[in-house]
Order: sequence, then structure tokens, then C-alpha cells
Amino acid sequence: MKRYFRSSCLVFLLCWLVLVSAAAAAERDFVVQGDIVYTPACGEAKILPQGYLVVKEGKVQGTYAELPAAYADLKKQDCRGQLIMPGFCDLHVHAAQYRQIGLGMDESLLTWLEKYTFPEEQKFSDPAYAERVYEDFAAELAKCGTTRAAVYGTIHRQSAEILAQKLAKRGLGAYVGKVNMDRNAPDYLCETSEASLAETEQFVHAPVWTDLVRPILTPRFAPSVTPKLLQDLGDLARRENLPVQTHLSENKGEIQWVAELFPTIRDYPQVYAHYGLYGTTPTLMAHCIHMDAAQIRDLVSHGVYPVFCPESNLNLTSGIMPVRRFLTAGAKVALGSDVGAGHDLFMPHVIVRAIQVSKVRAMEQPEEKALTLPEAFYLATKGGGSFFGKVGSFELGYDADLLIVRTPAALADRSVMERWQYFIYHGTPEDITARYVAGRYVR
Amino acid sequence: MKRYFRSSCLVFLLCWLVLVSAAAAAERDFVVQGDIVYTPACGEAKILPQGYLVVKEGKVQGTYAELPAAYADLKKQDCRGQLIMPGFCDLHVHAAQYRQIGLGMDESLLTWLEKYTFPEEQKFSDPAYAERVYEDFAAELAKCGTTRAAVYGTIHRQSAEILAQKLAKRGLGAYVGKVNMDRNAPDYLCETSEASLAETEQFVHAPVWTDLVRPILTPRFAPSVTPKLLQDLGDLARRENLPVQTHLSENKGEIQWVAELFPTIRDYPQVYAHYGLYGTTPTLMAHCIHMDAAQIRDLVSHGVYPVFCPESNLNLTSGIMPVRRFLTAGAKVALGSDVGAGHDLFMPHVIVRAIQVSKVRAMEQPEEKALTLPEAFYLATKGGGSFFGKVGSFELGYDADLLIVRTPAALADRSVMERWQYFIYHGTPEDITARYVAGRYVR
Repeated sequence: MKRYFRSSCLVFLLCWLVLVSAAAAAERDFVVQGDIVYTPACGEAKILPQGYLVVKEGKVQGTYAELPAAYADLKKQDCRGQLIMPGFCDLHVHAAQYRQIGLGMDESLLTWLEKYTFPEEQKFSDPAYAERVYEDFAAELAKCGTTRAAVYGTIHRQSAEILAQKLAKRGLGAYVGKVNMDRNAPDYLCETSEASLAETEQFVHAPVWTDLVRPILTPRFAPSVTPKLLQDLGDLARRENLPVQTHLSENKGEIQWVAELFPTIRDYPQVYAHYGLYGTTPTLMAHCIHMDAAQIRDLVSHGVYPVFCPESNLNLTSGIMPVRRFLTAGAKVALGSDVGAGHDLFMPHVIVRAIQVSKVRAMEQPEEKALTLPEAFYLATKGGGSFFGKVGSFELGYDADLLIVRTPAALADRSVMERWQYFIYHGTPEDITARYVAGRYVR
Repeated sequence: MKRYFRSSCLVFLLCWLVLVSAAAAAERDFVVQGDIVYTPACGEAKILPQGYLVVKEGKVQGTYAELPAAYADLKKQDCRGQLIMPGFCDLHVHAAQYRQIGLGMDESLLTWLEKYTFPEEQKFSDPAYAERVYEDFAAELAKCGTTRAAVYGTIHRQSAEILAQKLAKRGLGAYVGKVNMDRNAPDYLCETSEASLAETEQFVHAPVWTDLVRPILTPRFAPSVTPKLLQDLGDLARRENLPVQTHLSENKGEIQWVAELFPTIRDYPQVYAHYGLYGTTPTLMAHCIHMDAAQIRDLVSHGVYPVFCPESNLNLTSGIMPVRRFLTAGAKVALGSDVGAGHDLFMPHVIVRAIQVSKVRAMEQPEEKALTLPEAFYLATKGGGSFFGKVGSFELGYDADLLIVRTPAALADRSVMERWQYFIYHGTPEDITARYVAGRYVR
């Protein structure tokens, strides 16, 4: 009897699991009709007016001018007159600097760090503060149509775990990092090397991770991490196959400082390479402004992603990133808001700034052609999205990360291409009427 | 009896006029309490937390930490917790390009003009189109907190008059220009010299002008106006004491073209000077990017306003305006959105872009220090405002052009200075809860 009861329970449980997952899958099966825009390749805008985007189990099945009969039974959303585009990917953003957006932008980098950034980051030693700020951060990220992000927390493990939970709760996709700093930081933000490593190991095994929200190793940058800890983090990355994010070649003073701190290593990128943090596992390097042709080739051969953060580079007078050189060399360039040195989470603003900054470069170096909108949009979708897998496009098998975007009535007669341009240059988060990540509606 | 009746009528009429103007004046008498920020000098931010701004007959009486007893009876508005700042002045904006915002920004200047700007401007030959677009333009200008603007229409007199009426109806202050083009323009936008002058004379005497909305002569730029018409417009400006707005030294190809068109005149600025259009009457010159030290000194000695349009300069790859050189030389620099080459009417975005562009300049020329926020804000308020008289500041006798601006609750504990920075860098038009021009509420 007891045995019978036990096996009945098991059968029931299995049935229930099958039903629940079928329901969950069905929730992620739908067709949406509207003006589809995406960039399957850098610089190539694919436009399908009043097209159908078919999603099954959260993945794109395809885009069609006519809905194939096989999908006739799927739940259909009528978004005609609205744009359907991939969600944005922000590959460099400091969640803990969310509250300091726009503050102290007249200050020099060092004053800005000391007066605003470090005191603000210190507040995240209090998990209650993290609860409040990260709740708002995740909400604004979602509102802005950013569906995937590579996010920095602070050195505080518990708060960084809260950050991961807040992003997961919103249904966003993200890599989340607990920052490492065991030297050259204010006392109140400086860890011991041992504690930093131990906390990081605990962090990457915390019970907060989901399919969409994953941990990433985050040494702040070479000057604030000892060689010993860099080595330990490199070992950890390799051992557990963990991705890595940090900063590289943002300004000339920093490069000089790194040369002094690591006198036996050839250059700044090689410091990370030396410790196994330069493409051994998937790697994001924010900024990469001051790099020569050989360094760019080397970055490409390591498969490292340079993350172009134009708003931040302007605000901090860091320099003009030669984005065309990276693209020509075959680099997997991504875009980042770099909030709080950047002052805006809304990626269309970052796309426009990327184009503008590339135009500044083109003024002086006409052979380095400025980015076009279909190029910069690609960087903010499929380019950065590739760090997360098949993300940021509407080809077969891509995660269904998408935005529905309305156009003002006065522009309803414009072409899809023009309405897309209008949204990127003049749109606001309020124009986004719906967001999906991997086929799930973002609330 | 008849005579008695007539004088009674006159007395009645006079009483009525006195009463009405007293009521109108009273409407413009008030005190508003809140966190006051303004820039009485370039780079000097004056901050008065929970201060009182006193307005009588639409003019600022003063700002006070405590409300003087003499003003105790004035109607009081409690805006504590909100910022009170001067309205923005946009000294270069093409209202007729409002519908092309953000379109074709990947194109070269010439293609952009031919594909977007000229066909769009042509539509304003139809006053009904002007009615619709200028209604929306004026509404968005007001929403964005721009209280004063120097605005270009098209060559079409009737539509330009509609533009003036729409701005007046909103209660905004503006100079409005009917554009002159009698050569080097598409046939459908090219006037005869005689018609262009006659229409302009009719325009400046049209029954549409008010205290706040006034006409301005607007030859498009030297290449599209014949020497004869430039001369006639210069004479008209002098004869009727009319201000002038046009474009100067925006890009190198244009400068070369002007040299070819006016081979006997020394340089581009001198072309305008030659025809009495360079400071003979108050003059706005948009862009002024490629000018040497002697030209800058000459511009200053003519009292001409250079209008810095950073967003447009980036979008059209025009160049980096050396704003610090102009300021050091004592020029009266103003800011302009330059919509539609600029893609945004919201002046805080233009302020930030001005700072960013000046940082680009500082990267290469460290002696040309970047603009600070209190400098760029001054340019967008009192700097440009001075073109309209005592406008853009809160000193005694200034027109009471002001904005009330809310701060997100999460930042309520920040200093006034920080909340001001936050609004400029991260705010939106929705944060502006009220606007006044010369003491009148803008609806």
C-alpha cells in the first residue's frame, strides 16, 4: 500500500511537472505582428513591414511576411503600426552608481571617485540600502528596454546577490559581478586578498542564480587588485569556467600607473592576459580607448569584447575610442552605458552618442568612417548580445528578447526605417509599450 | 446729450482698460517658494534653498531667504522641494524641420538637405500643414521648458506668420524669421529677389506681432542669397532696426563656397559685415565653428552672438566649435538646439552636449578648458536670454521666465546643487511641473 502510494505520488508529481512546464512553455509561444526591424549583421538593417515574428518556447522561429499555416494556432498579438525590435544589451553598467547619475560631472576623475563614487559604493555595505537602490535600478533598466546587461555591484557580496535577485525578479538577463578591490582603494572599500577571494567563491555559488542571471568575475581594474588576487581570480575563472569583466585603457594616467605597478609585464592588456583574465573565458573589457594596432590585433586574437562607452568617455574626458579600427580588425564590439560615469541607462541615447563620438573621430581621421545607425544598433543588440549566447537578433533559435515601440501619430505615414531612426534619436522609454526576455513578458 | 453719452462711453472705456490691465498685472504678481538656482554670471551658480522669488508685473523683484513684509500680501505658491530656475533660451531652431527630427543622420549634409530638409520645407507652402506642425512644435517647445527662442520658418510668409501666432498663443517669447533664398536652392524653394524682399517687408509688418513675439530677418546663409538681396536686407535691418539671424562658418566646404561666390570680400564674416548684416542691429550667427583668433576678435567687436549648436555639429560632422576661445575673447555665446540637424528641443540635453563637446576640444587643446555646468547653463539662460533683453536670470527687473522642476523622491535628501545637476543630466520635460514667461503661466 505504502509503496503504491509512493509511486502514485511520483507519477502525480511527474505529471504536474510536465503540465507546469508545458504551461510555462505555452506562455512563451506566440506570434506578434508589427513593423519588424533588426540587424542580422553589423550595418545591415533588416526591415519587415507588418511582418510576423514567431516565438516558440521563448525562442525565435522566424520572421515572415505572411504567417505560415503551421503557426496559425499560436496566440497572436496585433502590434501593427508599432515597431518590433530586439531588446538592448548594455555591456557595462555600475548598478551601485545608479544614485549618483549626473552628479559631479565637472569634477576630474579622481575627485569624482573620491567625492561621489566611493562614498556611494560604501553605502552598499548595508543590504537594506541595496534592496532599495537595486529595486529602482532594475525597474529603470527594464523601463529603458535593456533586456540584457553586464552589471557591476560593489565589493559587498550580500548586496551583489540582492542585485542578482532584483534583476531576476524583473525577468531581465544579466551577468552580475561582486567587485574585487584589495589595494589602492579607500580603507572602507578595501578587502583583504583572502576575504575577497573567499567572498567571490561564495558569491558564484550563491543560491541566487537562474538561467538568465549568472555570475561574472569582476576585478575592478588592474591597479586596485594585487597580483596574487589577480592570479587567484584567473585560476577561479578557468576552474569554474566563469566569464570576466573589468576596465582597460580608459585614460593615459591609468595606463602609466599600470606600467608602474606591473613593471615586468609588457603592457596593460598583457597584465590581464598574464593572470588568465584576458579571453581565457568570455571577457568584457570596458573602454579600450588608448590602444594601438598591435594591441587591437591581440585583443581580437584573444576573443575579448571591447565595450565602447561613449557617454562616459565624454563625461570623464577620457578620449575618443577608435571604434572603426576595432570593427575593421574584427573585434566583437559591444556598447555600454557606464552609468554612473555615463548619465543615462536608455541605450538609444548611447547608440546616438556612439555615432556622434565616431563622427568626432572621423573629423580628424576621415579614413575611420563614422558609425551608421545600423552599425551602432547592431553593437547594442546582436553585437553585445552574443556575449549571452544567441541574443539580440530575430534569426532562428535566438532568444526572443524584444521590444514593442510606438510612433507618434504625426509620423504614422513615415517608412519603418524612418520611424526606427526617429525612435533611436528622439524616442523615450515611454515609447516602449512592451518588453520580452526569452519570450517572457517583462512586468 | 449725444456729447454726454460719448464722454461717458470714453470714461467707461478708460475705467475698463485700467481694470483689465490691473487684473492682468495682478495675475503676474506672485511669490514662489522653492529651491532657487540661477547663474547671474557665466560660471557662477547662485543657489537659494527654500528661497522666495518675488514677481511683480511679470518682472523679478528679487530673491530672498526670508519673504520681506512688503510682499506678504502677494499670492504665494509653495514649491518647496522643487527647483526654481530660469526658462531655457534656444537661439537657433528650425521650426519647419520639426517633423524630420532624427531622420537621415547617417547621410552627408548635402544628401540630408536634398532628401529630407528641402522636401519637408516645401510642405510649408501649404498653410494648413504649417498650422498642424507649428502647433505641435510650439507645444513641445513649451513642454521642454524653452521660454524664448530664435526660430526659422521657411520662405513662405504666411506659414511663418502662423508660426509666430502659434508661439504667441502658447505665451512663449520668440524672434521668428521668414527665410530668404533667391539662389542656390531647389526651384521649388527659390524666390525671386524682388518677391523675397517684398514678402519680408510684408512679414515684418504683419498683424501678428506681440510684446513677446517679434520678427527677425533671416537670410538662410550667404550662398543662398544674392548680393543684391543681402544689400536690401541689410538696408531693411538698419531702416527698421530689425535683428538678424543666419548661419556662419559651419563647415569647410561652405567656407570655400562663400569665398568663390564673393571673391572680392576678405572672408565669410566680412560678407555679412559688407551688407550691414553683422552686428549693425542685434545679430545671431549660428555655428561659428571654423574661425581664427582675428575673426573671433572681429565678431566680438561687432557685438555679434555666436550660437553654439553642439548636437547639430556632431550629427553633421561639422567640427568642434572652440567655445572657450569665444568666451575668453568676450563673445556673447548662446546655445541652440538646431532642430532638425540637432535632434532634440530639450535644452538640458543641449547643455550636456555643449559640455561634452567642449571636453572633446579640451582633450586636444588642454588650454581650452571644458565648460562647466554653471557656464553652459548660463549660456542657455542669461547668455542667450540677453538677446531678448533682461531675460534668463533672477536679478531685479528681469522678465520672470521660470520653470518649476521636481526631483525624484529618492533624491530628495540631496543638495540643491546636486538635484540641479541631476535634472540637467538625467531629467526629462515631464519633470517640469510649471513654466512662466514674463510672469505668465504657460499652458
